[in-house]
Amino acid sequence: MTDPSADFVVPEAWLDLAHALADAARPVARRYFRQPLEIIAKADESPVTIADREIEQAMRALIEARFPDHGIFGEEFGRTREDAPVQWVLDPIDGTQAFITGMPIFGTLIAACYQGRPVLGVVDQPILEERWVGAAGHPSTFQGAPIHTSGCADPGGATLYSTHPDMFAGLGRAEDYGRLTAAVKRTRFGGDCYAYGLLASGWADLVVEAMLQPYDYCALGPIVEGAGGAVSDWAGDPLTITSDGTVVAAASPALNVAARGLLNR
Amino acid sequence: MTDPSADFVVPEAWLDLAHALADAARPVARRYFRQPLEIIAKADESPVTIADREIEQAMRALIEARFPDHGIFGEEFGRTREDAPVQWVLDPIDGTQAFITGMPIFGTLIAACYQGRPVLGVVDQPILEERWVGAAGHPSTFQGAPIHTSGCADPGGATLYSTHPDMFAGLGRAEDYGRLTAAVKRTRFGGDCYAYGLLASGWADLVVEAMLQPYDYCALGPIVEGAGGAVSDWAGDPLTITSDGTVVAAASPALNVAARGLLNR
Repeated sequence: MTDPSADFVVPEAWLDLAHALADAARPVARRYFRQPLEIIAKADESPVTIADREIEQAMRALIEARFPDHGIFGEEFGRTREDAPVQWVLDPIDGTQAFITGMPIFGTLIAACYQGRPVLGVVDQPILEERWVGAAGHPSTFQGAPIHTSGCADPGGATLYSTHPDMFAGLGRAEDYGRLTAAVKRTRFGGDCYAYGLLASGWADLVVEAMLQPYDYCALGPIVEGAGGAVSDWAGDPLTITSDGTVVAAASPALNVAARGLLNR
Repeated sequence: MTDPSADFVVPEAWLDLAHALADAARPVARRYFRQPLEIIAKADESPVTIADREIEQAMRALIEARFPDHGIFGEEFGRTREDAPVQWVLDPIDGTQAFITGMPIFGTLIAACYQGRPVLGVVDQPILEERWVGAAGHPSTFQGAPIHTSGCADPGGATLYSTHPDMFAGLGRAEDYGRLTAAVKRTRFGGDCYAYGLLASGWADLVVEAMLQPYDYCALGPIVEGAGGAVSDWAGDPLTITSDGTVVAAASPALNVAARGLLNR
Protein backbone atom coordinates (compact mmCIF):
# COMPACT_ATOMS: atom_id res chain seq x y z
CA MET A 1 0.00 0.00 0.00
CA THR A 2 1.17 3.54 -0.67
CA ASP A 3 1.63 5.59 2.45
CA PRO A 4 -0.22 8.91 2.32
CA SER A 5 1.84 10.16 5.25
CA ALA A 6 5.08 9.73 3.32
CA ASP A 7 7.16 12.87 3.10
CA PHE A 8 6.07 13.84 -0.39
CA VAL A 9 3.57 16.69 -0.43
CA VAL A 10 1.78 17.43 -3.69
CA PRO A 11 2.45 21.07 -4.71
CA GLU A 12 -0.59 23.35 -4.88
CA ALA A 13 0.23 24.06 -8.53
CA TRP A 14 -0.36 20.39 -9.37
CA LEU A 15 -3.72 20.49 -7.60
CA ASP A 16 -4.64 23.66 -9.48
CA LEU A 17 -3.81 21.95 -12.75
CA ALA A 18 -5.78 18.83 -11.80
CA HIS A 19 -8.87 20.96 -11.18
CA ALA A 20 -8.28 22.80 -14.46
CA LEU A 21 -8.11 19.45 -16.31
CA ALA A 22 -11.38 18.27 -14.77
CA ASP A 23 -13.00 21.63 -15.49
CA ALA A 24 -11.97 21.28 -19.14
CA ALA A 25 -13.37 17.75 -19.39
CA ARG A 26 -16.82 18.44 -17.95
CA PRO A 27 -18.48 20.41 -20.74
CA VAL A 28 -17.17 18.02 -23.40
CA ALA A 29 -18.47 14.95 -21.58
CA ARG A 30 -21.81 16.64 -21.02
CA ARG A 31 -22.08 17.57 -24.70
CA TYR A 32 -21.62 13.96 -25.92
CA PHE A 33 -23.60 12.18 -23.18
CA ARG A 34 -27.01 10.81 -24.24
CA GLN A 35 -26.84 12.21 -27.73
CA PRO A 36 -30.02 11.60 -29.75
CA LEU A 37 -30.12 8.25 -31.53
CA GLU A 38 -30.25 9.89 -34.99
CA ILE A 39 -26.89 11.56 -34.36
CA ILE A 40 -25.32 8.39 -33.00
CA ALA A 41 -26.49 6.37 -36.02
CA LYS A 42 -25.06 8.89 -38.50
CA ALA A 43 -21.65 9.27 -36.85
CA ASP A 44 -18.71 7.23 -38.05
CA GLU A 45 -17.54 6.87 -34.47
CA SER A 46 -19.35 6.51 -31.19
CA PRO A 47 -19.94 9.63 -29.11
CA VAL A 48 -17.78 8.18 -26.33
CA THR A 49 -14.81 7.75 -28.65
CA ILE A 50 -15.13 11.31 -29.88
CA ALA A 51 -15.54 12.62 -26.32
CA ASP A 52 -12.57 10.57 -25.11
CA ARG A 53 -10.27 12.08 -27.74
CA GLU A 54 -11.53 15.63 -27.46
CA ILE A 55 -11.16 15.60 -23.66
CA GLU A 56 -7.71 14.05 -23.70
CA GLN A 57 -6.47 16.55 -26.30
CA ALA A 58 -7.71 19.43 -24.16
CA MET A 59 -6.10 17.98 -21.03
CA ARG A 60 -2.77 17.29 -22.75
CA ALA A 61 -2.64 20.86 -24.05
CA LEU A 62 -3.16 22.22 -20.54
CA ILE A 63 -0.42 19.99 -19.11
CA GLU A 64 2.02 20.93 -21.90
CA ALA A 65 1.35 24.62 -21.26
CA ARG A 66 1.88 24.48 -17.50
CA PHE A 67 4.45 21.73 -17.02
CA PRO A 68 6.20 21.10 -20.33
CA ASP A 69 8.73 18.75 -18.67
CA HIS A 70 6.10 16.46 -17.10
CA GLY A 71 5.22 13.18 -18.80
CA ILE A 72 1.72 12.21 -19.95
CA PHE A 73 0.13 8.76 -20.15
CA GLY A 74 -3.33 8.97 -21.68
CA GLU A 75 -5.77 6.22 -22.60
CA GLU A 76 -6.30 7.57 -26.12
CA PHE A 77 -2.95 9.05 -27.16
CA GLY A 78 -0.46 7.02 -25.14
CA ARG A 79 2.77 8.23 -23.56
CA THR A 80 4.86 11.38 -23.88
CA ARG A 81 8.20 11.87 -22.08
CA GLU A 82 7.90 8.56 -20.30
CA ASP A 83 11.20 9.01 -18.47
CA ALA A 84 10.06 12.17 -16.70
CA PRO A 85 9.77 11.76 -12.89
CA VAL A 86 6.28 13.24 -12.91
CA GLN A 87 3.65 11.52 -15.07
CA TRP A 88 0.08 12.69 -15.59
CA VAL A 89 -2.11 9.63 -16.13
CA LEU A 90 -5.44 10.36 -17.82
CA ASP A 91 -8.63 8.47 -18.57
CA PRO A 92 -10.97 10.98 -20.20
CA ILE A 93 -14.08 8.78 -19.85
CA ASP A 94 -13.69 5.89 -17.42
CA GLY A 95 -16.78 3.68 -17.45
CA THR A 96 -17.36 3.61 -21.20
CA GLN A 97 -20.22 1.14 -20.82
CA ALA A 98 -21.93 3.43 -18.31
CA PHE A 99 -21.45 6.41 -20.63
CA ILE A 100 -22.89 4.75 -23.71
CA THR A 101 -25.90 3.40 -21.83
CA GLY A 102 -26.76 6.82 -20.41
CA MET A 103 -25.80 6.01 -16.81
CA PRO A 104 -24.28 9.09 -15.12
CA ILE A 105 -21.68 7.27 -13.02
CA PHE A 106 -18.80 7.32 -15.52
CA GLY A 107 -15.94 9.65 -14.65
CA THR A 108 -12.93 11.56 -15.82
CA LEU A 109 -9.85 10.17 -14.07
CA ILE A 110 -6.78 12.33 -13.56
CA ALA A 111 -3.68 11.17 -11.70
CA ALA A 112 -0.18 12.44 -11.13
CA CYS A 113 2.53 9.88 -10.40
CA TYR A 114 5.86 10.84 -8.85
CA GLN A 115 8.65 8.34 -9.50
CA GLY A 116 6.03 5.76 -10.50
CA ARG A 117 3.85 6.20 -7.41
CA PRO A 118 0.38 7.79 -7.71
CA VAL A 119 0.40 10.86 -5.45
CA LEU A 120 -2.60 12.80 -6.78
CA GLY A 121 -5.98 11.61 -8.02
CA VAL A 122 -9.23 13.13 -9.24
CA VAL A 123 -12.53 11.38 -10.01
CA ASP A 124 -14.88 13.85 -11.66
CA GLN A 125 -18.49 13.02 -12.59
CA PRO A 126 -19.49 15.59 -15.21
CA ILE A 127 -23.26 15.08 -15.14
CA LEU A 128 -23.69 15.18 -11.37
CA GLU A 129 -20.89 17.78 -11.22
CA GLU A 130 -19.27 15.83 -8.41
CA ARG A 131 -15.53 15.75 -7.78
CA TRP A 132 -13.36 13.67 -5.47
CA VAL A 133 -9.74 14.78 -5.01
CA GLY A 134 -6.91 13.10 -3.14
CA ALA A 135 -3.28 14.16 -2.90
CA ALA A 136 -0.32 13.08 -0.76
CA GLY A 137 0.06 15.50 2.13
CA HIS A 138 -3.52 16.79 1.83
CA PRO A 139 -6.83 15.42 3.16
CA SER A 140 -9.06 13.92 0.46
CA THR A 141 -12.13 15.96 -0.46
CA PHE A 142 -15.55 15.61 -2.05
CA GLN A 143 -16.92 18.85 -3.47
CA GLY A 144 -14.10 20.60 -1.63
CA ALA A 145 -14.95 19.28 1.86
CA PRO A 146 -12.77 16.73 3.71
CA ILE A 147 -14.03 13.14 3.63
CA HIS A 148 -13.42 9.99 5.62
CA THR A 149 -14.00 6.34 4.85
CA SER A 150 -16.38 4.35 7.06
CA GLY A 151 -13.38 2.79 8.83
CA CYS A 152 -15.10 -0.61 8.46
CA ALA A 153 -12.60 -3.34 9.39
CA ASP A 154 -14.75 -6.49 9.18
CA PRO A 155 -15.67 -8.12 5.84
CA GLY A 156 -18.91 -9.35 7.45
CA GLY A 157 -20.07 -5.75 7.78
CA ALA A 158 -18.75 -4.52 4.44
CA THR A 159 -20.50 -3.42 1.27
CA LEU A 160 -18.40 -4.54 -1.69
CA TYR A 161 -18.52 -2.90 -5.12
CA SER A 162 -17.12 -4.35 -8.34
CA THR A 163 -17.85 -3.14 -11.84
CA HIS A 164 -18.71 -6.53 -13.33
CA PRO A 165 -18.65 -10.12 -12.00
CA ASP A 166 -16.93 -11.33 -15.17
CA MET A 167 -13.75 -9.29 -14.62
CA PHE A 168 -12.38 -12.03 -12.33
CA ALA A 169 -13.01 -14.96 -14.66
CA GLY A 170 -10.68 -13.26 -17.17
CA LEU A 171 -7.94 -13.57 -14.55
CA GLY A 172 -8.83 -17.15 -13.57
CA ARG A 173 -9.79 -15.83 -10.11
CA ALA A 174 -13.57 -16.24 -10.14
CA GLU A 175 -13.45 -18.79 -7.33
CA ASP A 176 -11.24 -16.57 -5.17
CA TYR A 177 -13.59 -13.66 -5.75
CA GLY A 178 -16.53 -15.92 -4.84
CA ARG A 179 -14.99 -16.51 -1.40
CA LEU A 180 -14.93 -12.77 -0.85
CA THR A 181 -18.52 -12.16 -2.00
CA ALA A 182 -19.68 -14.99 0.28
CA ALA A 183 -18.01 -13.27 3.26
CA VAL A 184 -19.17 -9.67 2.81
CA LYS A 185 -22.47 -8.14 3.92
CA ARG A 186 -23.57 -7.19 0.41
CA THR A 187 -22.17 -7.01 -3.11
CA ARG A 188 -23.14 -4.40 -5.69
CA PHE A 189 -22.06 -4.32 -9.30
CA GLY A 190 -21.87 -1.53 -11.86
CA GLY A 191 -19.93 1.00 -9.83
CA ASP A 192 -17.07 1.90 -12.18
CA CYS A 193 -14.79 4.65 -10.83
CA TYR A 194 -17.74 6.14 -8.97
CA ALA A 195 -17.58 3.26 -6.47
CA TYR A 196 -14.14 4.40 -5.26
CA GLY A 197 -15.59 7.83 -4.58
CA LEU A 198 -18.43 6.24 -2.59
CA LEU A 199 -15.80 4.27 -0.64
CA ALA A 200 -13.72 7.37 0.11
CA SER A 201 -16.86 9.18 1.32
CA GLY A 202 -17.83 6.34 3.67
CA TRP A 203 -20.89 5.08 1.77
CA ALA A 204 -19.28 1.83 0.62
CA ASP A 205 -16.51 -0.15 2.29
CA LEU A 206 -14.64 -2.19 -0.27
CA VAL A 207 -13.95 -2.11 -4.01
CA VAL A 208 -12.24 -5.12 -5.57
CA GLU A 209 -11.40 -5.20 -9.25
CA ALA A 210 -9.04 -6.74 -11.78
CA MET A 211 -7.92 -6.30 -15.38
CA LEU A 212 -7.49 -2.54 -14.93
CA GLN A 213 -5.06 -0.34 -16.83
CA PRO A 214 -2.85 2.31 -15.15
CA TYR A 215 -5.19 5.09 -16.34
CA ASP A 216 -8.08 3.17 -14.70
CA TYR A 217 -6.50 2.82 -11.24
CA CYS A 218 -3.79 5.48 -10.69
CA ALA A 219 -6.27 8.21 -9.67
CA LEU A 220 -8.07 6.05 -7.11
CA GLY A 221 -5.40 5.30 -4.49
CA PRO A 222 -4.63 8.89 -3.40
CA ILE A 223 -8.36 9.61 -2.96
CA VAL A 224 -9.10 6.51 -0.87
CA GLU A 225 -5.88 6.67 1.18
CA GLY A 226 -6.21 10.39 1.91
CA ALA A 227 -9.64 9.57 3.37
CA GLY A 228 -8.27 6.91 5.72
CA GLY A 229 -8.57 3.84 3.49
CA ALA A 230 -5.96 1.40 2.23
CA VAL A 231 -5.32 0.46 -1.39
CA SER A 232 -3.07 -2.24 -2.84
CA ASP A 233 -2.99 -4.85 -5.55
CA TRP A 234 -4.32 -8.31 -4.69
CA ALA A 235 -0.84 -9.35 -3.48
CA GLY A 236 -0.69 -6.43 -1.04
CA ASP A 237 1.85 -4.36 -2.94
CA PRO A 238 1.40 -0.61 -3.41
CA LEU A 239 -0.12 0.46 -6.71
CA THR A 240 2.37 1.94 -9.13
CA ILE A 241 2.18 2.99 -12.75
CA THR A 242 3.32 -0.57 -13.64
CA SER A 243 1.06 -2.62 -11.31
CA ASP A 244 -0.73 -5.75 -12.58
CA GLY A 245 -4.21 -4.20 -12.72
CA THR A 246 -5.67 -5.89 -9.65
CA VAL A 247 -7.02 -3.58 -6.94
CA VAL A 248 -8.23 -4.01 -3.36
CA ALA A 249 -9.45 -0.64 -2.09
CA ALA A 250 -10.69 -0.79 1.50
CA ALA A 251 -12.12 1.54 4.13
CA SER A 252 -9.33 0.56 6.55
CA PRO A 253 -5.95 -1.18 6.51
CA ALA A 254 -7.50 -4.10 8.45
CA LEU A 255 -10.22 -4.57 5.83
CA ASN A 256 -7.61 -4.51 3.05
CA VAL A 257 -5.70 -7.29 4.82
CA ALA A 258 -8.86 -9.32 5.51
CA ALA A 259 -10.11 -9.02 1.94
CA ARG A 260 -6.77 -10.14 0.55
CA GLY A 261 -6.78 -13.04 2.99
CA LEU A 262 -10.03 -14.23 1.49
CA LEU A 263 -8.92 -13.66 -2.11
CA ASN A 264 -5.60 -15.47 -1.64
CA ARG A 265 -6.58 -18.36 0.65
CA MET B 1 -47.73 -8.07 -22.88
CA THR B 2 -50.10 -5.25 -22.07
CA ASP B 3 -51.22 -3.34 -25.11
CA PRO B 4 -50.61 0.39 -24.80
CA SER B 5 -53.01 0.97 -27.69
CA ALA B 6 -55.88 -0.62 -25.76
CA ASP B 7 -58.90 1.64 -25.45
CA PHE B 8 -58.19 2.75 -21.90
CA VAL B 9 -56.83 6.30 -21.71
CA VAL B 10 -55.42 7.47 -18.40
CA PRO B 11 -57.30 10.59 -17.23
CA GLU B 12 -55.28 13.79 -16.93
CA ALA B 13 -56.25 14.01 -13.27
CA TRP B 14 -54.41 10.75 -12.59
CA LEU B 15 -51.31 12.08 -14.33
CA ASP B 16 -51.55 15.29 -12.31
CA LEU B 17 -51.72 13.26 -9.11
CA ALA B 18 -48.78 11.06 -10.18
CA HIS B 19 -46.63 14.16 -10.68
CA ALA B 20 -47.78 15.55 -7.33
CA LEU B 21 -46.78 12.28 -5.64
CA ALA B 22 -43.31 12.36 -7.20
CA ASP B 23 -42.95 16.05 -6.32
CA ALA B 24 -43.77 15.21 -2.69
CA ALA B 25 -41.22 12.38 -2.59
CA ARG B 26 -38.24 14.29 -3.97
CA PRO B 27 -37.35 16.60 -1.09
CA VAL B 28 -37.73 13.79 1.46
CA ALA B 29 -35.46 11.42 -0.47
CA ARG B 30 -32.92 14.22 -0.93
CA ARG B 31 -32.96 15.01 2.80
CA TYR B 32 -32.12 11.43 3.85
CA PHE B 33 -29.67 10.56 1.04
CA ARG B 34 -25.99 10.42 2.08
CA GLN B 35 -26.60 11.53 5.62
CA PRO B 36 -23.39 11.97 7.62
CA LEU B 37 -22.12 8.77 9.24
CA GLU B 38 -22.53 10.19 12.77
CA ILE B 39 -26.25 10.63 12.20
CA ILE B 40 -26.63 7.17 10.69
CA ALA B 41 -24.82 5.54 13.61
CA LYS B 42 -26.98 7.29 16.20
CA ALA B 43 -30.34 6.57 14.55
CA ASP B 44 -32.41 3.60 15.66
CA GLU B 45 -33.43 3.00 12.06
CA SER B 46 -31.63 3.41 8.79
CA PRO B 47 -32.17 6.64 6.84
CA VAL B 48 -33.71 4.66 3.98
CA THR B 49 -36.34 3.11 6.27
CA ILE B 50 -37.26 6.51 7.63
CA ALA B 51 -37.34 8.04 4.15
CA ASP B 52 -39.42 5.12 2.82
CA ARG B 53 -42.07 5.63 5.49
CA GLU B 54 -42.15 9.40 5.37
CA ILE B 55 -42.51 9.41 1.57
CA GLU B 56 -45.20 6.75 1.53
CA GLN B 57 -47.21 8.56 4.21
CA ALA B 58 -47.07 11.78 2.20
CA MET B 59 -48.10 10.00 -1.00
CA ARG B 60 -50.97 8.10 0.67
CA ALA B 61 -52.33 11.34 2.11
CA LEU B 62 -52.34 12.96 -1.33
CA ILE B 63 -54.15 9.97 -2.88
CA GLU B 64 -56.73 9.88 -0.07
CA ALA B 65 -57.38 13.59 -0.53
CA ARG B 66 -57.86 13.45 -4.30
CA PHE B 67 -59.32 9.99 -4.92
CA PRO B 68 -60.74 8.65 -1.65
CA ASP B 69 -62.29 5.64 -3.42
CA HIS B 70 -59.03 4.46 -5.07
CA GLY B 71 -57.06 1.63 -3.51
CA ILE B 72 -53.43 1.91 -2.38
CA PHE B 73 -50.74 -0.78 -2.33
CA GLY B 74 -47.55 0.54 -0.76
CA GLU B 75 -44.31 -1.20 0.07
CA GLU B 76 -44.26 0.09 3.64
CA PHE B 77 -47.90 0.26 4.72
CA GLY B 78 -49.54 -2.42 2.61
CA ARG B 79 -53.00 -2.36 1.04
CA THR B 80 -56.04 -0.14 1.49
CA ARG B 81 -59.37 -0.76 -0.33
CA GLU B 82 -57.95 -3.69 -2.23
CA ASP B 83 -61.22 -4.33 -4.07
CA ALA B 84 -61.25 -0.89 -5.70
CA PRO B 85 -60.86 -1.02 -9.52
CA VAL B 86 -58.09 1.59 -9.41
CA GLN B 87 -55.03 0.80 -7.30
CA TRP B 88 -52.06 3.12 -6.71
CA VAL B 89 -48.96 0.98 -6.29
CA LEU B 90 -46.08 2.75 -4.53
CA ASP B 91 -42.43 2.07 -3.84
CA PRO B 92 -41.10 5.18 -2.08
CA ILE B 93 -37.42 4.20 -2.51
CA ASP B 94 -36.79 1.46 -5.06
CA GLY B 95 -33.14 0.47 -5.08
CA THR B 96 -32.54 0.43 -1.34
CA GLN B 97 -28.99 -0.86 -1.81
CA ALA B 98 -28.20 1.99 -4.21
CA PHE B 99 -29.69 4.52 -1.77
CA ILE B 100 -27.73 3.33 1.25
CA THR B 101 -24.45 3.21 -0.66
CA GLY B 102 -24.85 6.76 -1.92
CA MET B 103 -25.50 5.81 -5.57
CA PRO B 104 -28.01 8.24 -7.13
CA ILE B 105 -29.82 5.72 -9.32
CA PHE B 106 -32.52 4.66 -6.85
CA GLY B 107 -36.02 5.88 -7.65
CA THR B 108 -39.51 6.58 -6.43
CA LEU B 109 -41.92 4.27 -8.27
CA ILE B 110 -45.54 5.25 -8.72
CA ALA B 111 -48.06 3.15 -10.64
CA ALA B 112 -51.78 3.14 -11.18
CA CYS B 113 -53.43 -0.15 -12.03
CA TYR B 114 -56.89 -0.35 -13.56
CA GLN B 115 -58.63 -3.67 -13.04
CA GLY B 116 -55.29 -5.22 -12.14
CA ARG B 117 -53.39 -3.94 -15.18
CA PRO B 118 -50.71 -1.25 -14.80
CA VAL B 119 -51.81 1.72 -16.92
CA LEU B 120 -49.68 4.53 -15.49
CA GLY B 121 -46.09 4.53 -14.28
CA VAL B 122 -43.56 7.04 -12.96
CA VAL B 123 -39.86 6.51 -12.24
CA ASP B 124 -38.51 9.58 -10.45
CA GLN B 125 -34.83 10.02 -9.55
CA PRO B 126 -34.77 12.65 -6.79
CA ILE B 127 -31.05 13.51 -6.87
CA LEU B 128 -30.71 13.91 -10.62
CA GLU B 129 -34.24 15.37 -10.69
CA GLU B 130 -35.11 13.10 -13.60
CA ARG B 131 -38.58 11.75 -14.26
CA TRP B 132 -39.90 9.14 -16.68
CA VAL B 133 -43.70 8.94 -17.11
CA GLY B 134 -45.78 6.45 -19.08
CA ALA B 135 -49.56 6.21 -19.30
CA ALA B 136 -51.95 4.26 -21.50
CA GLY B 137 -53.19 6.51 -24.30
CA HIS B 138 -50.27 8.96 -23.91
CA PRO B 139 -46.69 8.89 -25.26
CA SER B 140 -44.07 8.14 -22.62
CA THR B 141 -41.90 11.07 -21.60
CA PHE B 142 -38.57 11.87 -19.98
CA GLN B 143 -38.38 15.33 -18.42
CA GLY B 144 -41.66 16.07 -20.20
CA ALA B 145 -40.43 15.25 -23.73
CA PRO B 146 -41.60 12.20 -25.71
CA ILE B 147 -39.17 9.28 -25.78
CA HIS B 148 -38.66 6.19 -27.90
CA THR B 149 -36.84 2.94 -27.29
CA SER B 150 -33.93 2.00 -29.57
CA GLY B 151 -36.21 -0.43 -31.41
CA CYS B 152 -33.42 -3.03 -31.19
CA ALA B 153 -34.81 -6.41 -32.26
CA ASP B 154 -31.71 -8.63 -32.17
CA PRO B 155 -30.24 -9.97 -28.90
CA GLY B 156 -26.80 -9.93 -30.53
CA GLY B 157 -26.96 -6.14 -30.70
CA ALA B 158 -28.58 -5.60 -27.32
CA THR B 159 -27.31 -4.09 -24.09
CA LEU B 160 -28.86 -6.00 -21.19
CA TYR B 161 -29.30 -4.56 -17.70
CA SER B 162 -30.09 -6.54 -14.55
CA THR B 163 -29.80 -5.32 -10.98
CA HIS B 164 -27.79 -8.26 -9.64
CA PRO B 165 -26.61 -11.57 -11.11
CA ASP B 166 -27.78 -13.44 -8.01
CA MET B 167 -31.47 -12.62 -8.51
CA PHE B 168 -31.80 -15.57 -10.92
CA ALA B 169 -30.18 -18.20 -8.72
CA GLY B 170 -32.94 -17.52 -6.16
CA LEU B 171 -35.41 -18.64 -8.80
CA GLY B 172 -33.34 -21.63 -9.95
CA ARG B 173 -32.93 -19.93 -13.34
CA ALA B 174 -29.22 -18.99 -13.29
CA GLU B 175 -28.47 -21.30 -16.22
CA ASP B 176 -31.35 -19.90 -18.29
CA TYR B 177 -30.15 -16.37 -17.56
CA GLY B 178 -26.62 -17.42 -18.55
CA ARG B 179 -27.89 -18.37 -22.02
CA LEU B 180 -29.26 -14.86 -22.39
CA THR B 181 -26.09 -13.09 -21.21
CA ALA B 182 -24.03 -15.23 -23.61
CA ALA B 183 -26.23 -14.09 -26.51
CA VAL B 184 -26.39 -10.33 -25.91
CA LYS B 185 -23.83 -7.71 -26.92
CA ARG B 186 -23.12 -6.58 -23.36
CA THR B 187 -24.47 -7.04 -19.85
CA ARG B 188 -24.44 -4.38 -17.17
CA PHE B 189 -25.45 -4.82 -13.54
CA GLY B 190 -26.58 -2.40 -10.87
CA GLY B 191 -29.29 -0.62 -12.80
CA ASP B 192 -32.25 -0.87 -10.43
CA CYS B 193 -35.36 0.96 -11.69
CA TYR B 194 -33.14 3.46 -13.46
CA ALA B 195 -32.31 0.82 -16.09
CA TYR B 196 -35.94 0.74 -17.27
CA GLY B 197 -35.79 4.48 -17.80
CA LEU B 198 -32.59 4.08 -19.82
CA LEU B 199 -34.38 1.41 -21.88
CA ALA B 200 -37.41 3.60 -22.51
CA SER B 201 -35.11 6.45 -23.61
CA GLY B 202 -33.23 4.23 -26.08
CA TRP B 203 -29.90 4.05 -24.19
CA ALA B 204 -30.27 0.37 -23.20
CA ASP B 205 -32.20 -2.37 -25.00
CA LEU B 206 -33.22 -5.05 -22.54
CA VAL B 207 -33.86 -5.36 -18.80
CA VAL B 208 -34.40 -8.85 -17.38
CA GLU B 209 -35.13 -9.37 -13.72
CA ALA B 210 -36.79 -11.74 -11.28
CA MET B 211 -37.95 -11.88 -7.67
CA LEU B 212 -39.68 -8.50 -7.94
CA GLN B 213 -42.70 -7.36 -5.98
CA PRO B 214 -45.72 -5.58 -7.55
CA TYR B 215 -44.49 -2.22 -6.22
CA ASP B 216 -41.13 -2.92 -7.93
CA TYR B 217 -42.50 -3.65 -11.41
CA CYS B 218 -45.96 -2.08 -11.89
CA ALA B 219 -44.60 1.38 -12.76
CA LEU B 220 -42.19 0.10 -15.40
CA GLY B 221 -44.46 -1.43 -18.05
CA PRO B 222 -46.42 1.70 -19.00
CA ILE B 223 -43.19 3.70 -19.38
CA VAL B 224 -41.43 1.15 -21.61
CA GLU B 225 -44.52 0.27 -23.66
CA GLY B 226 -45.52 3.88 -24.24
CA ALA B 227 -42.01 4.38 -25.70
CA GLY B 228 -42.41 1.51 -28.17
CA GLY B 229 -41.03 -1.35 -26.07
CA ALA B 230 -42.61 -4.60 -24.94
CA VAL B 231 -42.86 -5.86 -21.35
CA SER B 232 -44.02 -9.24 -20.06
CA ASP B 233 -43.17 -11.81 -17.45
CA TRP B 234 -40.71 -14.55 -18.46
CA ALA B 235 -43.63 -16.70 -19.71
CA GLY B 236 -44.80 -13.91 -22.04
CA ASP B 237 -47.90 -12.95 -20.08
CA PRO B 238 -48.77 -9.29 -19.44
CA LEU B 239 -47.69 -7.91 -16.09
CA THR B 240 -50.53 -7.49 -13.64
CA ILE B 241 -50.69 -6.59 -9.99
CA THR B 242 -50.52 -10.35 -9.24
CA SER B 243 -47.68 -11.39 -11.63
CA ASP B 244 -44.92 -13.75 -10.50
CA GLY B 245 -42.20 -11.07 -10.26
CA THR B 246 -40.27 -12.03 -13.39
CA VAL B 247 -39.83 -9.28 -15.99
CA VAL B 248 -38.57 -9.11 -19.57
CA ALA B 249 -38.61 -5.47 -20.70
CA ALA B 250 -37.42 -5.03 -24.27
CA ALA B 251 -36.90 -2.25 -26.79
CA SER B 252 -39.20 -4.02 -29.27
CA PRO B 253 -41.77 -6.83 -29.33
CA ALA B 254 -39.33 -8.94 -31.38
CA LEU B 255 -36.59 -8.55 -28.76
CA ASN B 256 -39.02 -9.52 -26.01
CA VAL B 257 -39.86 -12.72 -27.91
CA ALA B 258 -36.21 -13.49 -28.67
CA ALA B 259 -35.10 -12.92 -25.07
CA ARG B 260 -37.85 -15.19 -23.75
CA GLY B 261 -36.86 -17.80 -26.32
CA LEU B 262 -33.36 -17.85 -24.84
CA LEU B 263 -34.58 -17.86 -21.23
CA ASN B 264 -37.06 -20.67 -21.79
CA ARG B 265 -35.17 -22.93 -24.20
